[in-house]
Amino acid sequence: MASSKKIKFGALVHGVGGSVSSWRHPEAITDASVNFEFYKRQTLKAEEGKFDLVFIADGLYINEKSIPHFLNRFEPITILSALAAVTSRIGLVGTLSTSYSEPFTVSRQFASLDHISGGRAGWNVVTSPLEGSALNFSKSEHPSHPQRYRIAEEYLQVSRGLWDSWEDDAFVRDKESGVFFDPEKLHTLNHKGEFFSVKGPLNIARSKQGQPVIFQAGSSEDGKNLAAKEADAVFTGQDNLEEAKAFYKDVKERAVRFGRSPEDILILPGIGPIVGRTEEEAERKYQELAGLVTIENALNYLGRFFEHHDFSQYPLDEPFPDLGDFGSNSFRSGTDKIKQKAKEQNLTLHQVALQAATPRTGFIGTPEQVADKIQTWHEEGAADGFIIHSELPSGLSDFVDLVVPILQERGLYRLDYEADTLRGNLEVPIPENRYAKQKVNS
Amino acid sequence: MASSKKIKFGALVHGVGGSVSSWRHPEAITDASVNFEFYKRQTLKAEEGKFDLVFIADGLYINEKSIPHFLNRFEPITILSALAAVTSRIGLVGTLSTSYSEPFTVSRQFASLDHISGGRAGWNVVTSPLEGSALNFSKSEHPSHPQRYRIAEEYLQVSRGLWDSWEDDAFVRDKESGVFFDPEKLHTLNHKGEFFSVKGPLNIARSKQGQPVIFQAGSSEDGKNLAAKEADAVFTGQDNLEEAKAFYKDVKERAVRFGRSPEDILILPGIGPIVGRTEEEAERKYQELAGLVTIENALNYLGRFFEHHDFSQYPLDEPFPDLGDFGSNSFRSGTDKIKQKAKEQNLTLHQVALQAATPRTGFIGTPEQVADKIQTWHEEGAADGFIIHSELPSGLSDFVDLVVPILQERGLYRLDYEADTLRGNLEVPIPENRYAKQKVNS
Ligand SMILES: Cc1cc2nc3c(=O)[nH]c(=O)nc-3n(C[C@H](O)[C@H](O)[C@H](O)COP(=O)(O)O)c2cc1C
Ligand SMILES: Cc1cc2nc3c(=O)[nH]c(=O)nc-3n(C[C@H](O)[C@H](O)[C@H](O)COP(=O)(O)O)c2cc1C
Repeated sequence: MASSKKIKFGALVHGVGGSVSSWRHPEAITDASVNFEFYKRQTLKAEEGKFDLVFIADGLYINEKSIPHFLNRFEPITILSALAAVTSRIGLVGTLSTSYSEPFTVSRQFASLDHISGGRAGWNVVTSPLEGSALNFSKSEHPSHPQRYRIAEEYLQVSRGLWDSWEDDAFVRDKESGVFFDPEKLHTLNHKGEFFSVKGPLNIARSKQGQPVIFQAGSSEDGKNLAAKEADAVFTGQDNLEEAKAFYKDVKERAVRFGRSPEDILILPGIGPIVGRTEEEAERKYQELAGLVTIENALNYLGRFFEHHDFSQYPLDEPFPDLGDFGSNSFRSGTDKIKQKAKEQNLTLHQVALQAATPRTGFIGTPEQVADKIQTWHEEGAADGFIIHSELPSGLSDFVDLVVPILQERGLYRLDYEADTLRGNLEVPIPENRYAKQKVNS
Repeated sequence: MASSKKIKFGALVHGVGGSVSSWRHPEAITDASVNFEFYKRQTLKAEEGKFDLVFIADGLYINEKSIPHFLNRFEPITILSALAAVTSRIGLVGTLSTSYSEPFTVSRQFASLDHISGGRAGWNVVTSPLEGSALNFSKSEHPSHPQRYRIAEEYLQVSRGLWDSWEDDAFVRDKESGVFFDPEKLHTLNHKGEFFSVKGPLNIARSKQGQPVIFQAGSSEDGKNLAAKEADAVFTGQDNLEEAKAFYKDVKERAVRFGRSPEDILILPGIGPIVGRTEEEAERKYQELAGLVTIENALNYLGRFFEHHDFSQYPLDEPFPDLGDFGSNSFRSGTDKIKQKAKEQNLTLHQVALQAATPRTGFIGTPEQVADKIQTWHEEGAADGFIIHSELPSGLSDFVDLVVPILQERGLYRLDYEADTLRGNLEVPIPENRYAKQKVNS
């Protein structure tokens, strides 16, 4: 069940990088994570490449072991709003956790971003993997994994309810009669649930695209179910074609079970392409990146997935230690994968750490090779599109300048934006206002 | 104790207006409150006028009686971030309530805005006057007036602590050695107080101006004390020169009692200038505005200050009803003033309502007359500057084009920005990092 749509692209704009040492690259801008000009340049490059969206990740807890980008970075709502003002077509998607925020505020901020950008906002709904987050939010403990997803689900119900507070034609604004709005088209939510009581209405209208686009990035059972039920798009990490196809099929089938069309939810694996004019040049670029990582850095990085576990206590060249259930309340799908792979391939801690710190992405090669691979994933039903997150300073430009034109020539990728909203470009439906729908149906 | 500094100006950018009917003005843009181009144009006009800042107000509860601007408007953090990207010198100040938000998130968002704008962020710390806010935030009740101010005070302690998480030279970013930051210059707050437990550190550094500028807008005893202790600037409503002088003196004296210099806290009354080429033209403009208000609108508007009280139940032409203590948990200082004035001047409900809906600002007249008045308030110790919030569509342009040049000619107002941060232009001190200070002193 491959996609009938053209390939979608997002760019993860990510400051000094999602890896532990990419800031040490000779061409890296070392304050990139708090450098607005950097974010602006990357976003304009992605817009030049007709990307559907930029994506801003997030986290709510750091300590001295966190990777450089996490220590000092822009907050998603603010940076996306700033980017909205200097772009015109590209979508603006940000991560925000439902475990440590208020639905009224968050729904409002994304709605406001949606208006500022003329219908280009998206929200990556996450539940916060890091235990320590609780300590920054006056909470005695981090909610359990299943609890976090129950909160997320109710939270999204509230948000969607708030976003529908005003029907699309509620604002009459007739100077002559003095009627500013039609009170029949204003709806008070009155939500009272297990976790939230929110009266409403929201103090902002729906945007051109109805509601912000919903992204989801969890890969656990609960995560996939939330995605299948609610998300317009899934940002996922997939190591190879077979796994990616299985994930794709799994989530689409779940969506069908929730009564949705498989076309209405996009699967977008994250990939870190490394493009060279020749295969050798690409390989050299990868080795240059890998060479920037020290083993101390790599152990720290690995620890992050396991609730900041201290891996320096174990011998480096013995098999990856047995950690039992440890790590399962955080990045469960990630830690399960790491443990499983270490066991299957009989890897040492040293090997696991270096692989985690500089994963050897499958998308290394010449522009044609990378384009081929993207085409294969798209045609074989492994992806509706991709989130590009290269750790090389020139990664996004290389991709836009060298790979995109090949995909355009092959007719697989747009030559220009088809729409001016994010939903329009992603070809996902505009949710009808629930109250307007009721009226039509009754 | 008049100011030794030049006059400061802020522009309240306020969509369709802070009054109930200004959207009906023939030149008004009726979707202004969610129109980014409108906000951008107003802000660029204020920057052309060398204003210190734009100011965005806010509220957390609406119902069908709220004034038009409140029903459907941008959220402050998002609109300010967008404006940061299209301006270069003007400060960006937004209202955010400490009663319904998390210090970690809010401190982060303002810090991020401060980085995006290169040190131009400001936060108007309010406690939320409207009772109904509780219903949008899963709270059973709105905290009492004194409780809200105790929360606000602890909240600000937390924010300032989080903002100092990183000393100014903490980020070494040395590619050669691989040292990204100096762990000695990273500080974990570990705050545990009555209302908040926040571990920290914050995941963003201090900006060029150290910390965002703190505004405060409450005029009750508690409000003035919080301002005197913590604020860099006070946004206040003052009806006449005598009251304004008393308020100015009062707050400056309180600041001195808290061990501060009176120069370090700016008093900025809000004024709504109406400028005409002649006195008659100015008066005509005022009458045109006042004529847009119906009595129903005016009663609704009045009710807003009194917890959305329904004033249509009282006879219009009898004395203003005795409401007892009603309204004192919301806009206390505002409602006290309304009650007192009604009593003293023996006003009917009709009169009170119309005056509330279209206050006859003292700043109506020719450009020279308005400039004179501003000069008087500044010289006589009633104001360090002003927040301009005209209800006329052309109000801000008129002020910038006609009044500002007169004040510049008189040497009372800057010809160009002196600094590139908001603190720099306001001439308020950059707070030193608390940990760096400790080291110097020890
Ligand atoms: C590709 C991808 C990107 C993610 N991005 C974020 C992020 O930016 N911030 C965050 O807090 N969690 C992020 N997550 C974590 C998930 O949202 C989720 O909290 C975590 O994976 C645990 O949920 P799960 O067990 O359902 O996967 C991401 C996960 C994946 C797979
Ligand atoms: C000039 C002025 C502007 C204000 N702006 C806001 C605002 O934008 N949002 C808000 O919630 N409250 C605002 N307030 C209300 C105050 O912050 C405060 O909540 C209210 O006046 C009650 O506190 P008080 O009794 O100390 O005055 C404003 C008050 C004044 C005087």
